[in-house]
Amino acid sequence: MISTGSSGNCLYVALVHYPVADKNGETIASAVTNLDLHDIARACRTYGVKRYYIITPLEDQLLLANRIIAHWTQGAGGVYNPQRRKALERIRLKSDFRTTVDEIAQTEAYTPVTVATSAKRSDSGLSYGRLRLMLANGKPFLLAFGTAWGLTEAFMMEADYRLAPLEGVGSYNHLSVRSAVSITLDRLVGRQ
Amino acid sequence: MISTGSSGNCLYVALVHYPVADKNGETIASAVTNLDLHDIARACRTYGVKRYYIITPLEDQLLLANRIIAHWTQGAGGVYNPQRRKALERIRLKSDFRTTVDEIAQTEAYTPVTVATSAKRSDSGLSYGRLRLMLANGKPFLLAFGTAWGLTEAFMMEADYRLAPLEGVGSYNHLSVRSAVSITLDRLVGRQ
Repeated sequence: MISTGSSGNCLYVALVHYPVADKNGETIASAVTNLDLHDIARACRTYGVKRYYIITPLEDQLLLANRIIAHWTQGAGGVYNPQRRKALERIRLKSDFRTTVDEIAQTEAYTPVTVATSAKRSDSGLSYGRLRLMLANGKPFLLAFGTAWGLTEAFMMEADYRLAPLEGVGSYNHLSVRSAVSITLDRLVGRQ
Repeated sequence: MISTGSSGNCLYVALVHYPVADKNGETIASAVTNLDLHDIARACRTYGVKRYYIITPLEDQLLLANRIIAHWTQGAGGVYNPQRRKALERIRLKSDFRTTVDEIAQTEAYTPVTVATSAKRSDSGLSYGRLRLMLANGKPFLLAFGTAWGLTEAFMMEADYRLAPLEGVGSYNHLSVRSAVSITLDRLVGRQ
């Protein structure tokens, strides 16, 4: 039995810190940043995403993320700003993508369809309109976003789908991952 | 003679640090933050915004913003990441909104139409579709976004238009200003 979120969709978001590319194309584990937690959690809450997963294999990064989240969900931050608490309480920390897929599969009793995102063009890129229709079917979907210079090609290949890149009005499309997640969610589930 | 940007529109963005509201509705001057410069400059560059104005009357904040921008446009940052340079070189610093309007009027030989944004609902809110059509006329427009708890009501009243709030799928719409600018630009000038 799949339980849809407030959007009527069953949408999950993962922010991947490993495996991602660095500036030179080498595979690295990037650092978790405070604002990636806040901005993306707020966008996810606004667009009815059921859970926002932070994925990193680094123990110290998981501890850091956990401290930030605890401050805003159980500590002084949650009292000071209850709206922020509502956003950050949807965050979950995971050491890898596979266990994230497994957890969602267990929750929903249905393995989520995985969709990888990238700023690079590809012939096989799924359009936003098409994915919007697929989401309306109510099945669970997990959208993966890469930090640093983006998800590795090997990671992209393993996903069920690859979403078309966001493009602006020219050839420049170096959006922050925070902007990319926000725009993508608006295109997929925002009111039209 | 109006010179349109790469979008074919003549669009300017202002991030206002004064006058904005604090949590209790008092008028304050908020602090300039590093990531507001970077994320919003990248979104503006992606969507063909001609200039991105940072507005604050505080001298020390102007100096701080200037140092950050110089690092990425003339210093080591620009060499390390040329794409970031291309984004940040469109930033201009101004002490108030009025002189920003005047500068654009001088550049374009046409006073820009001012559009204030807010997360609050209003009966007079301009729709995204309507503003998108207005932009296509090629006249200069200046979109104002508030930091902290948003633009003051007095500021909103002085603008030519008030844009409808971004709404997600439920009643929660506490997006960061970085997310709000990104989504707004995508709705107004993104490829459809």
